[in-house]
Amino acid sequence: MIKKYFEKNRKLIDKKLEFFLPKRSIHPRIIHEAMRYSVLNGGKRIRPMLVLESSRICGGKTKNALPIACAIELVHSYSLIHDDLPSMDDADIRRGKPSCHVKYGEALAILAGDSLLTLAFNLISRGKDKSKTGRIIFEISKAIGSFGMIGGQVMDLKVKDEKIVDLPTMEYINIHKTASLIAASAKAGALMANAPDKKVEALQKYGEFIGLAFQVIDDILDKDGYVGIFGLSGAREEAQKLAERAKDLLKIFGSKADNLRELADFVVNRKE
Amino acid sequence: MIKKYFEKNRKLIDKKLEFFLPKRSIHPRIIHEAMRYSVLNGGKRIRPMLVLESSRICGGKTKNALPIACAIELVHSYSLIHDDLPSMDDADIRRGKPSCHVKYGEALAILAGDSLLTLAFNLISRGKDKSKTGRIIFEISKAIGSFGMIGGQVMDLKVKDEKIVDLPTMEYINIHKTASLIAASAKAGALMANAPDKKVEALQKYGEFIGLAFQVIDDILDKDGYVGIFGLSGAREEAQKLAERAKDLLKIFGSKADNLRELADFVVNRKE
Repeated sequence: MIKKYFEKNRKLIDKKLEFFLPKRSIHPRIIHEAMRYSVLNGGKRIRPMLVLESSRICGGKTKNALPIACAIELVHSYSLIHDDLPSMDDADIRRGKPSCHVKYGEALAILAGDSLLTLAFNLISRGKDKSKTGRIIFEISKAIGSFGMIGGQVMDLKVKDEKIVDLPTMEYINIHKTASLIAASAKAGALMANAPDKKVEALQKYGEFIGLAFQVIDDILDKDGYVGIFGLSGAREEAQKLAERAKDLLKIFGSKADNLRELADFVVNRKE
Repeated sequence: MIKKYFEKNRKLIDKKLEFFLPKRSIHPRIIHEAMRYSVLNGGKRIRPMLVLESSRICGGKTKNALPIACAIELVHSYSLIHDDLPSMDDADIRRGKPSCHVKYGEALAILAGDSLLTLAFNLISRGKDKSKTGRIIFEISKAIGSFGMIGGQVMDLKVKDEKIVDLPTMEYINIHKTASLIAASAKAGALMANAPDKKVEALQKYGEFIGLAFQVIDDILDKDGYVGIFGLSGAREEAQKLAERAKDLLKIFGSKADNLRELADFVVNRKE
């Protein structure tokens, strides 16, 4: 069931991303081509799905949450483009294809990332209910700035060459680089649905735990990070524990939150 | 008189920028150091001053316009950091000091730019009157995205190696790369003061003309761009014409707009 639900929402998100991104025919074409190349590439769309699902279980309308969901995916794409750059993680391949700077050159890759981040805020600012969208822009910009996602990337770069990283530093990196935006996704969906504080906080915390679990699994798949400290089975246990803590937070939503429970399991059981 | 007025406002803006930027002592220190290095460097602060002055002549309060003014200066700083990168304009010096990537390395320079752009939207989103701040975020993000400032930089990179650039392309670059953010500054100030559409449009157009004049003078100082097409005296005439057109738009404001008239003259007569 969850699979069918995911598939349906992924298609919806892809359709909307395609709609919100500037057309390839618009001047200057090359930047719009690079932006589309990096976003419309078969991503899992976990973050936007979380926005939609958080909104839904708080009584919000999918239609209203969709621009926020797409904006968060644009932010995610921007962060991947910049992280992949030669001066950062120097990754040539992204989702099985040449990364943005390999395909379009460094300058255009930097500018495509900049444009996607800018477009994300533009998308959110178009919302009719300005008191909500203002709050959402505040929360997302806090989550992805130098106290959030970018702070995580800064520390990640700093420890890149060190073979052994201590646990507090690794946790700082994972909370900021990965979990922060996932937590903001869940929070934004709840805020868009006018959820009470208690539900907003529960969903944000849920997002943070599955974000961390997501990162531990990444480390297992890459034989990196947590695996070095906990070993392979220890890391698996840690991911499981985080997913359980995430699911504990969903009690107040009852059976409505079953999709989010399955999403937590999906994150822990994923093989890629 | 204008000089004294400018000096006073420049100090006010610098003080507020210093306040809004994360302290050097906050983790991760290095990114906050890089952000502060690139913003607190003795800039002319023309854009934020324009925000304040547009707001003032439309009856707005300086206190309310200051966060928007600072946000626009952060956007300007971000654009300079990214433009200076080796893959872009490859500039080692900015305002007489090593540019951000020379001082902190490429990765941190990219991230410092990203953080400043993100902080700019965060700053605006803190405003109490969300209907205004939402509109301002919409306008600024439009002015600096791939249809605006970034579009201008894309075309600038494209023609960089060509010795002769045709006039329409050069005008596209100047309108988008330089004038767009200056126009948005004037517009944002007017919007913040709840000005009627007529005044908002006049100030935006004024900003666009002085933005273009600013760029022509840049070309004269660098013996570049317009000078190649119009010659030195032709370019000077062009800048003068643009400043006059800018001042024509200020008629509806009467003598209240005298500072903006002097600002137009200052832009055309500047020697650096």
